[in-house]
Amino acid sequence: MKLPVDEDRLRADIEANAAFGAVEYDEPDKRGRTNRTGTPANRRARDHLVDRLEAANLDVSVDAVGNITGTWTPPSADQTNAPVASGSHLDSVPEGGIFDGPLGVYAALEAVRAMQDAGVEPVRPVTVVSFTEEEGGTYGDGLLGSSVATGELPTEEALSRTDADGDTLEEALSRIGYRGEGRLDPATWDGFYELHIEQDTTLERAGASVGIVTTITGITHYAVTIEGEANHAGATAMGERTDALAAASEFVLDVERAATEIVETESETAVATVGSLSVSPNATNVVPGRVEAGVDIRDIHREPMEALVSAVRESLDRVVTTRGVTTEAQRPFDVAPEPMSDRLRGDAHVAAEAAGIEAIDLHSGAAHDTMRVARVTDASLLFAPSRDGISHNPREWTDWADCATATTVLAGAIARTAGVKTSEGPTTD
Amino acid sequence: MKLPVDEDRLRADIEANAAFGAVEYDEPDKRGRTNRTGTPANRRARDHLVDRLEAANLDVSVDAVGNITGTWTPPSADQTNAPVASGSHLDSVPEGGIFDGPLGVYAALEAVRAMQDAGVEPVRPVTVVSFTEEEGGTYGDGLLGSSVATGELPTEEALSRTDADGDTLEEALSRIGYRGEGRLDPATWDGFYELHIEQDTTLERAGASVGIVTTITGITHYAVTIEGEANHAGATAMGERTDALAAASEFVLDVERAATEIVETESETAVATVGSLSVSPNATNVVPGRVEAGVDIRDIHREPMEALVSAVRESLDRVVTTRGVTTEAQRPFDVAPEPMSDRLRGDAHVAAEAAGIEAIDLHSGAAHDTMRVARVTDASLLFAPSRDGISHNPREWTDWADCATATTVLAGAIARTAGVKTSEGPTTD
Repeated sequence: MKLPVDEDRLRADIEANAAFGAVEYDEPDKRGRTNRTGTPANRRARDHLVDRLEAANLDVSVDAVGNITGTWTPPSADQTNAPVASGSHLDSVPEGGIFDGPLGVYAALEAVRAMQDAGVEPVRPVTVVSFTEEEGGTYGDGLLGSSVATGELPTEEALSRTDADGDTLEEALSRIGYRGEGRLDPATWDGFYELHIEQDTTLERAGASVGIVTTITGITHYAVTIEGEANHAGATAMGERTDALAAASEFVLDVERAATEIVETESETAVATVGSLSVSPNATNVVPGRVEAGVDIRDIHREPMEALVSAVRESLDRVVTTRGVTTEAQRPFDVAPEPMSDRLRGDAHVAAEAAGIEAIDLHSGAAHDTMRVARVTDASLLFAPSRDGISHNPREWTDWADCATATTVLAGAIARTAGVKTSEGPTTD
Repeated sequence: MKLPVDEDRLRADIEANAAFGAVEYDEPDKRGRTNRTGTPANRRARDHLVDRLEAANLDVSVDAVGNITGTWTPPSADQTNAPVASGSHLDSVPEGGIFDGPLGVYAALEAVRAMQDAGVEPVRPVTVVSFTEEEGGTYGDGLLGSSVATGELPTEEALSRTDADGDTLEEALSRIGYRGEGRLDPATWDGFYELHIEQDTTLERAGASVGIVTTITGITHYAVTIEGEANHAGATAMGERTDALAAASEFVLDVERAATEIVETESETAVATVGSLSVSPNATNVVPGRVEAGVDIRDIHREPMEALVSAVRESLDRVVTTRGVTTEAQRPFDVAPEPMSDRLRGDAHVAAEAAGIEAIDLHSGAAHDTMRVARVTDASLLFAPSRDGISHNPREWTDWADCATATTVLAGAIARTAGVKTSEGPTTD
């Protein structure tokens, strides 16, 4: 069965969402947005989603941390059946692309509309989901909404988190009208699908339209502080300095070198990044006294991740010895690699085959809300191609036809898991 | 002749000034302030100075860029004689110390008061000066007020400079009431003395109380941009990255290495610093796409400075080749090394000897307004000791007794240059 996904309708939703927090560029190949939790842009993106869910006759609900759901319960569905859920997130990194997150939310809605248009009636309700603060950066390190929903992060702890201005998440959500009630509970779902852009070039290189993820990477974040001594850049001789930025520069290169070595010798999927670095006092004429750096370590295997963690610690120990700085390191975020559900992956493969669409297996190097959901119910992550693998960047791009093709597989998979009769007969009893 | 400098009166002025923009610390050895041009703290510091100048019966004047002067014309002075000026600045770097600048302003005022108290009457008027925006960072790279006064920077160009929020200097000065009229003209001065903290350990190591500067360092600033490609930290394999921060880290270490080599082989006074570095998008989970860095190069000789400039360019060329980044470099600030006036240095040495105070010759690795003034009239820079050589830091410290001792030499030198009769007879005809 191939469901009649409407590319124009899907595109119109994603384009409308792209306007909220849009950033203007002179280059025609850049299309960016900054949509951070609790901002006016974020409120408008949420309002638009709620409008679109209601326009498709879905029952909308908002939980305490602003997770939004819209549930379609067709006459055919047994209300006591656990629903099949699908979705992603609407927030973005600063100057992120327009597909990372919104594609998965609106593809899930489009899947429901395609079933409605085709007169397809599943025996399970279908729930469209938008999780709060997937990207992190405003209220923590990411996956906030799905972490609360799956019980990993207490609701009150999430709500009391503060942004850089000291505003709590609760204040921010209240201000934009999305501080709802209760806790969304994915454990009550029969299964969960998330469609996302790949953010790498595996599909592009294979010429495949859809990826079906086998395992989502594990992630560790390190927050590192290197303290030297701020001093006058002109009056402090080279031999008398304790330059925190020079020490941090060695650290950045050590982390890069360690990851490259592990890729060559142990695990080609391993990555390590010093993504953020802030210098104090950060004036041209002052020797840097203090640097704060954020390190991101990932792999689909635990052992290479721990080897990179050791490399981070060894590099810090080294600059303490060789440069006389002091260092601190905290590990505020750590999630293990997460395998996906064989049952849902099977349904996705069958749906792709039935629609005549080539789908390949691959792993995810990016974190997704699915990795939280996978701890409490069956979960599957599908990928659409990313041009040049670029994401978290206004040059992120996925052709609209590819969005529609991947959404066709998503819709077929949801329908199959939700128990729609196909030519092969019912798939759920 | 030893003039009766009042340590407690000098200290009270500097302590009062330290309260404007004071930063609180838990550590008892930290005493910091942030006093940026045009801020409320800056207005209060200026108001206090004007009060103190007027209390000593000086005629106060403010020029178009907010340079403040107070002139003492005793009955003995011939109004047609060119005055002897002395001063420094009141602004600070973020979280700077309490002596860098204010010591020189209030020591000049204390020198006048000491002459008044002693009934000493010079034949030249004496002008106390406070230059605007010496440190830079808010409206350019520093020495703004002295650059305007000496004709190096057009008044209108200075007034139209904007801070990070887009406020012009003119708006900022108007807001705090220090957008005066005309242009202070140091070319009309007979000579200029500036007393400043050393910001290095030469005096401390020599056990001397006062330094008399032979040459002020030359300074070049480079503003460097390194552009790579922002990308997802998890989904972008190590081999597929163009990481702007990793490239910048090589650059920071190249600059440090080049300066260390030049110190060892060519000029022990050379220094080079990457003092500022800003990363975009600066999120832990994004491969850095762009880095902006500020480089500071100094020496008392031109050739080693140019060798360091070449090293900066070579390092940028190298990361373009090896890492595929693009780079830009601008040189927004460049001043040549500046020798001090032999006549004024001689007067300072005589004044130190007459007061029984040990003074030694040294060079200045820091820029000072004096290097601008030296282009249009005779100028001399005196140093008081800095504990551990620390400055541009809340741990900056100079003992109050050392402040008074250096002020005693300053007062004697001003008196000598201004033509006060001493036991050896008149020094100016």
